[in-house]
Amino acid sequence: MEYAPFFVLAAAVIAIVFAGYKFFAVKKLPEGTKEMASISSKIRAGAMAYLKRQYKTVGIFFAVMFVIIGILAYAGLLTPFVPFAFITGGLFSGLSGFIGMKIATYANSRTAQGAKDSLNKGLKIAFSSGTVMGMTVVGLGLLDISVWFILLRYVFGIQEIGEITSAMLTFGMGASSMALFARVGGGIFTKAADVGADLVGKVEAGIPEDDPRNPACIADNVGDNVGDVAGMGADLYESYVGSIISCGALAVAAGHSFNGVILPMLIAAVGILASIISTFFVSTKEGATQKMLLGSLRRGTYSAAVISALASFALIYILMPANIGLFGAVLSGLLAGVLIGYFTEYYTSDSYKPTQKLSGSSETGSATIIIDGIALGMKSTAIPVVIVGISVLVSYFVAGGFSGAENAFELGLYGVGLSAVGMLSTLGITLATDAYGPVADNAGGIAEMSGLDPQVRERTDALDSLGNTTAATGKGFAIGSAALTALALIVSYTDEINAIAPGKLDLAITNPAVLIGLFVGAMLPFLFSAMTMQAVGRAAHKIVVEVRRQFREIKGLLEGTAEADYETCVDICTKSSLREMIVPAALGVFAPIVVGLVLGVNGVVGMLAGALVSGFVLAIMMANSGGAWDNAKKYIEAGNFGGKGSDNHKAAVVGDTVGDPFKDTSGPSVNILIKLLSMVSIVFAALIANYGGLGLF
Amino acid sequence: MEYAPFFVLAAAVIAIVFAGYKFFAVKKLPEGTKEMASISSKIRAGAMAYLKRQYKTVGIFFAVMFVIIGILAYAGLLTPFVPFAFITGGLFSGLSGFIGMKIATYANSRTAQGAKDSLNKGLKIAFSSGTVMGMTVVGLGLLDISVWFILLRYVFGIQEIGEITSAMLTFGMGASSMALFARVGGGIFTKAADVGADLVGKVEAGIPEDDPRNPACIADNVGDNVGDVAGMGADLYESYVGSIISCGALAVAAGHSFNGVILPMLIAAVGILASIISTFFVSTKEGATQKMLLGSLRRGTYSAAVISALASFALIYILMPANIGLFGAVLSGLLAGVLIGYFTEYYTSDSYKPTQKLSGSSETGSATIIIDGIALGMKSTAIPVVIVGISVLVSYFVAGGFSGAENAFELGLYGVGLSAVGMLSTLGITLATDAYGPVADNAGGIAEMSGLDPQVRERTDALDSLGNTTAATGKGFAIGSAALTALALIVSYTDEINAIAPGKLDLAITNPAVLIGLFVGAMLPFLFSAMTMQAVGRAAHKIVVEVRRQFREIKGLLEGTAEADYETCVDICTKSSLREMIVPAALGVFAPIVVGLVLGVNGVVGMLAGALVSGFVLAIMMANSGGAWDNAKKYIEAGNFGGKGSDNHKAAVVGDTVGDPFKDTSGPSVNILIKLLSMVSIVFAALIANYGGLGLF
Repeated sequence: MEYAPFFVLAAAVIAIVFAGYKFFAVKKLPEGTKEMASISSKIRAGAMAYLKRQYKTVGIFFAVMFVIIGILAYAGLLTPFVPFAFITGGLFSGLSGFIGMKIATYANSRTAQGAKDSLNKGLKIAFSSGTVMGMTVVGLGLLDISVWFILLRYVFGIQEIGEITSAMLTFGMGASSMALFARVGGGIFTKAADVGADLVGKVEAGIPEDDPRNPACIADNVGDNVGDVAGMGADLYESYVGSIISCGALAVAAGHSFNGVILPMLIAAVGILASIISTFFVSTKEGATQKMLLGSLRRGTYSAAVISALASFALIYILMPANIGLFGAVLSGLLAGVLIGYFTEYYTSDSYKPTQKLSGSSETGSATIIIDGIALGMKSTAIPVVIVGISVLVSYFVAGGFSGAENAFELGLYGVGLSAVGMLSTLGITLATDAYGPVADNAGGIAEMSGLDPQVRERTDALDSLGNTTAATGKGFAIGSAALTALALIVSYTDEINAIAPGKLDLAITNPAVLIGLFVGAMLPFLFSAMTMQAVGRAAHKIVVEVRRQFREIKGLLEGTAEADYETCVDICTKSSLREMIVPAALGVFAPIVVGLVLGVNGVVGMLAGALVSGFVLAIMMANSGGAWDNAKKYIEAGNFGGKGSDNHKAAVVGDTVGDPFKDTSGPSVNILIKLLSMVSIVFAALIANYGGLGLF
Repeated sequence: MEYAPFFVLAAAVIAIVFAGYKFFAVKKLPEGTKEMASISSKIRAGAMAYLKRQYKTVGIFFAVMFVIIGILAYAGLLTPFVPFAFITGGLFSGLSGFIGMKIATYANSRTAQGAKDSLNKGLKIAFSSGTVMGMTVVGLGLLDISVWFILLRYVFGIQEIGEITSAMLTFGMGASSMALFARVGGGIFTKAADVGADLVGKVEAGIPEDDPRNPACIADNVGDNVGDVAGMGADLYESYVGSIISCGALAVAAGHSFNGVILPMLIAAVGILASIISTFFVSTKEGATQKMLLGSLRRGTYSAAVISALASFALIYILMPANIGLFGAVLSGLLAGVLIGYFTEYYTSDSYKPTQKLSGSSETGSATIIIDGIALGMKSTAIPVVIVGISVLVSYFVAGGFSGAENAFELGLYGVGLSAVGMLSTLGITLATDAYGPVADNAGGIAEMSGLDPQVRERTDALDSLGNTTAATGKGFAIGSAALTALALIVSYTDEINAIAPGKLDLAITNPAVLIGLFVGAMLPFLFSAMTMQAVGRAAHKIVVEVRRQFREIKGLLEGTAEADYETCVDICTKSSLREMIVPAALGVFAPIVVGLVLGVNGVVGMLAGALVSGFVLAIMMANSGGAWDNAKKYIEAGNFGGKGSDNHKAAVVGDTVGDPFKDTSGPSVNILIKLLSMVSIVFAALIANYGGLGLF
């Protein structure tokens, strides 16, 4: 098994090659009319311009952090590899987003063109684009991990496995930081454009969504890409890598040594192969109904899960025959992801009662739909908490947590780490089904703007609506895996501290440092969400002002005889979101350091736990309230409760607008925040252990 | 010092006598016109009818719990006093609400009548009513404590002080249960009536607030009494009692023995005397401006704080001269309460930037004012968390938490308990300034309904607006003290467990039971808030239907020639709120038992800590978002951003309506929830320690 890392590397390369193949396959498809191509290229140009500037801004942050981490490494508080690992983590995370977005902006017009022929063709193109994204994320993630592992072990010749996992653990911080910037920046961009475009266009001027007369419509479509695609790519890259490396670190603590460390990587590797195989199952007959399309996507994800589970069993049987129970941990993670996804869908899809009822709340106006939507989101947190609780318990149990062995505790926690890996093992395909949504959304925009046959728009709408369902499942995985990964990272942190400063930890909840840390941690996701929501508000306000100005000053714009100045809106969104992302991201990076300096290592653990539990609940609430409002509006638009244009619809639009920053900016960013906090804590562990706590703690 | 409990008893009696004196002084004032008296008596009848039925419903719950607790006591899992103590706690908590409401419903017409003469006269009557409430709460609270203490020690002859504090600790559960029922039931009532009345009356029929043609207007005014008065009375009774008894239990753990136990009671006793003295400072010249009125109220609360602080210093100097640092703990608690109150006001008063800015958000519609209001509430959680953190740290420090003594930990925690007592020591007068608000609100309603001179309404509005400011301070105390009390209760719980089952506790945050408990705990306030918010929605919907029916079926109602059927609306609110309060309240009672049976004692502690930190943050967010929306609307009504009737105003009304259940139902109930969870855990400690945890934990 000594050369297993090379097998992992091979799987990573296969994923990347497969992504490359799909990329060019999509790219060579016809772009449609000249107008479609032109709109698509405008969107692509806007998105790329944004991303370039984002990377520049983030580059400064990375340079500064590189110097700080470099100094810490020089002072002996970190191993010398860490600064470089930090950079690669950030680079690959960013690259995942970049490639995913590149293909998405190629695929949008091609999906619209495909939808001219048939629903099925549109689906296939959009799904191929999603596959590029999914495979890029898992491929680059596993590439980063396996190359570092090979470098550390075979080039630098580190034989002590604990040293390797410990060094690798710290490079997740690069990925987390990048992910936070991408999610927050992209999230602000997309919602500022969306809210701004809707407020003036739909509400004031009374023109439909994606109408080319709306100066913010290109910005809106750019936003779908930089937020939902690039942001999500960086986000899940980070979860994926984080779960694997933290599980490796837990393996060492549990005394599972080499095989235990390599197991999560191998599970991820077979998950990649399973995902690739399963993408071929995603196909359907011509003239398929929406239900059949969904079934076809589900066939892909479920078969990947089954193959992955079987392969995991074989791996555990070979690598750790004495701990065959670990398979239960992998399974419980996989199952938890599916279940959380199902309940996300239950609470947010208009095929189920909660969202249908929410639509009905519009009958007494916008205030009641807001109240009920928030209540729905809050209520929907209960089941995921129970699922995560049971999953943690089961994986702890099967891994030997209650065995009575001397290291039963560590054994059990390794199981928890493995369940996170299990949940994310089929990310290649779950992300593909998720990332295809924004492409369909964009395709609809292009169909509208270039005046295609209404039937095309209907088809892209059907795809988009299907995308909402799969996105719900995707969110389930993102949130569930964030919780389990953050959990594993917290435990890894305590292992680190125990190695650096034995006896320093006193994690009793009644320890004042832990307790105050818990309070601060519980507050951070709220403060962070407030910042990101206000940022959206400020940026959207600028868009509103600009769109109003264009309507007023550009003669003939509303009549359709003059063209809007799209670039200015894109530019405003770009500038605002880049400026606005800095403070929330800084909160994530500096909170653990400040709390550590004041309250010491125990305070840090308290803070991490507080942020994890309150952030988990808050993220679910915001995601589900937002999703439910969105679909409640769509439910009314489908002709229920008075239909489009009715007072009920107007009330539902208010709900949808409130939900926008909830579900696409603040909610998903909180997922990253809770992991970033842990990552930063790990990187600065030695500093805090030696100098934190004001001499009191 | 052996007879100090009798001094405490004397202070309690003095408070009750003073309350009685004020009660009759208010009652003998003129009620105004026949019409005013009739409206007042309708409100009183409605409120009393509600309260009677509430007590009946709650009575069933108490009877059932009495039997359960009785069985546990019979089985030797509880001392035999507990079932009876449980009943007295509930009884006195309910009585506090009852008396407070009785006087409030007498004082409303008298305040309106007083306001005919002058603003100052109105203030004095309303404030006297508040004083009755404040003194009743602290008087009955201290009476309950001192009588039990005296009974246990001098009648039953228990000499071991730990046994006494342990028995007394459990009787807080009665108070907490009662408080939760009162807060939730009253909160649903008041907001269902308010929202229902506004939705049909103001929005659909276009008639002003408190218009007698609105069939829900009496219910609305009844709601102010059962929610804001009776609910708040029971709530703060519970905080007050809880902080004193948990501090007593912590004294025993810290080895401070008799003097340490009696100290918090004595601090509360001198606080009562300080409050009584200071009520005489609340007076102002005729023709005083609003600022002068506020100054006069502030003079009362600040002088009580100063006197109380000085007397506390003397008490500590006499009782515990070796621990004079404890004074710092008392002081830090007092200061924390004042500071949290200040920042509550800063974030929610339209004299400051945040709320003024929020008003401006109305310019882009109701969606943006909702988003910004939620963000404001979320942001406002940061400072209170830091204040509570510092307060905990300081009181832990000065009480000897870092002294290096063998029991340093317990010494420090006693300090934390004492800071909670310090914060609430002047509750007699802070509650008086708080409870006067709903009276002024009611007085305004009566002035409107009985067609008094508009000047009277202006004056009551001024009083009401002043009440909003003092209510903000009151909320600061309620939330801050809830956090500190819950904290002290959690520690008391762990002490109980250590006494019952030594070695069973493993509170490390990485222990899976603790961790899962944390997750569940963090989720509970969300689930609870969702339930209460939805309950308001359902009840309000019934009111809307009924009001619409009356407008439709009662000929001449809208023209003012026929009278509305007020009683049906009151009846609907009563029935709905009583039915709707059961499930959320049951959640509070059964969650600790279920979690305990599954996850064991460590899981319970995790749950308590999770609920404490997430509930604290959520409660502040909901209270401040709600308060800010309310005042943002008032700011617009005062002529800013387009004034009353503008589109901006309409947007702000939506915000206000969303904020209603936030600030008056869910938010304050969460405060009680986090304490009730601890109380129930304490009562069932022996059961869970012996039978909980599925044999795993």
